[in-house]
Amino acid sequence: MTSSKGMLVVVSGPAGVGKGTLCRALFAQWSGLEYSVSVTTRKPRPGETEGKEYYFRTPEEFFKMIEKNEFLEWAEFCGNYYGTPKFHVEKILQENKTILLEIDIQGAKQVKKQYPEGVFIFIVPPSYEALAERLRGRGTEPEDVIRQRLDKAIQELKNISDYDYVIENDEIQTAVEKLKSIIIAEQCSVKRKSLFFKEGP
Amino acid sequence: MTSSKGMLVVVSGPAGVGKGTLCRALFAQWSGLEYSVSVTTRKPRPGETEGKEYYFRTPEEFFKMIEKNEFLEWAEFCGNYYGTPKFHVEKILQENKTILLEIDIQGAKQVKKQYPEGVFIFIVPPSYEALAERLRGRGTEPEDVIRQRLDKAIQELKNISDYDYVIENDEIQTAVEKLKSIIIAEQCSVKRKSLFFKEGP
Repeated sequence: MTSSKGMLVVVSGPAGVGKGTLCRALFAQWSGLEYSVSVTTRKPRPGETEGKEYYFRTPEEFFKMIEKNEFLEWAEFCGNYYGTPKFHVEKILQENKTILLEIDIQGAKQVKKQYPEGVFIFIVPPSYEALAERLRGRGTEPEDVIRQRLDKAIQELKNISDYDYVIENDEIQTAVEKLKSIIIAEQCSVKRKSLFFKEGP
Repeated sequence: MTSSKGMLVVVSGPAGVGKGTLCRALFAQWSGLEYSVSVTTRKPRPGETEGKEYYFRTPEEFFKMIEKNEFLEWAEFCGNYYGTPKFHVEKILQENKTILLEIDIQGAKQVKKQYPEGVFIFIVPPSYEALAERLRGRGTEPEDVIRQRLDKAIQELKNISDYDYVIENDEIQTAVEKLKSIIIAEQCSVKRKSLFFKEGP
């Protein structure tokens, strides 16, 4: 993707850290970026539109896309498959726009291999206790599963050196401002602009 | 200054680009950073206070400070000397705060040698014509001086690769937002945070 002039922003972090809420809040407040639309094998819910919330595909179609290396990253959750299609990302980058991917840490690793020039942002909880409280607050999982998730989060914090920025998600509006600031700043980066000049028409 | 935890931000660019106006606007809107106080040999004007607008020194005192290498950068304008004293900058950095220097391109070069870990921001005019208009709008200089300044500005634009960020000063509020975003983003930078961790107490 050296020919593109857009910017790929990856927001990642441990489960329960609030990265989804953060990204949704940013989109609600700011029109400066595009959201990545995922491919999924799960059935559309009422009101969901092909190409808007998701690209809906059969498992066979999804596996064919994996074979053809058409995903930036993909994963399986609860029996359904989800993936970030390259064609969507590349289309937006070619339009010189900024695209945001909100994905888990394994997904971010896959993306980094293919787009090392992307902007990688790691969201951390203000504390271990805060993360524990959030996971318990969901009320959906037994205590032993929560403990496993917490142990995993601690392990995942070690990935921080693979990232360019870290945002502590203590107060949502402050965190949204930081996320927005990082994107604006990167758009002003001389390194990125010289890439642009070099690649110019 | 490897022991400090603060951040030095340098705003520079050609004469007439509006970097002073930009920095003043940021200070008026945001309390997230400290301003550098310069040493000068010019006489205090009514209302100016020692240590607030400037540190006022005699030429002899100033030259002694140069000899003792007590300036980050210094220059002469219209028969008066102006310099950025290291003690002020280091004091603020030791307090873990962000300090902003608004200086010319030669000054920025001097600072970069001593603080390569600083954040260097270059302000550019939206166009050659816009810069010419601004310089003429001052109404203080004859046309041949303005032409010299414009030629110098074109030359100075070649220094851009020494900088981390570039801001086009077309609309003041947009430019202020970009400047603020760069500072917030740098405070989230993993590179900077790992410096912090390494240098911890």
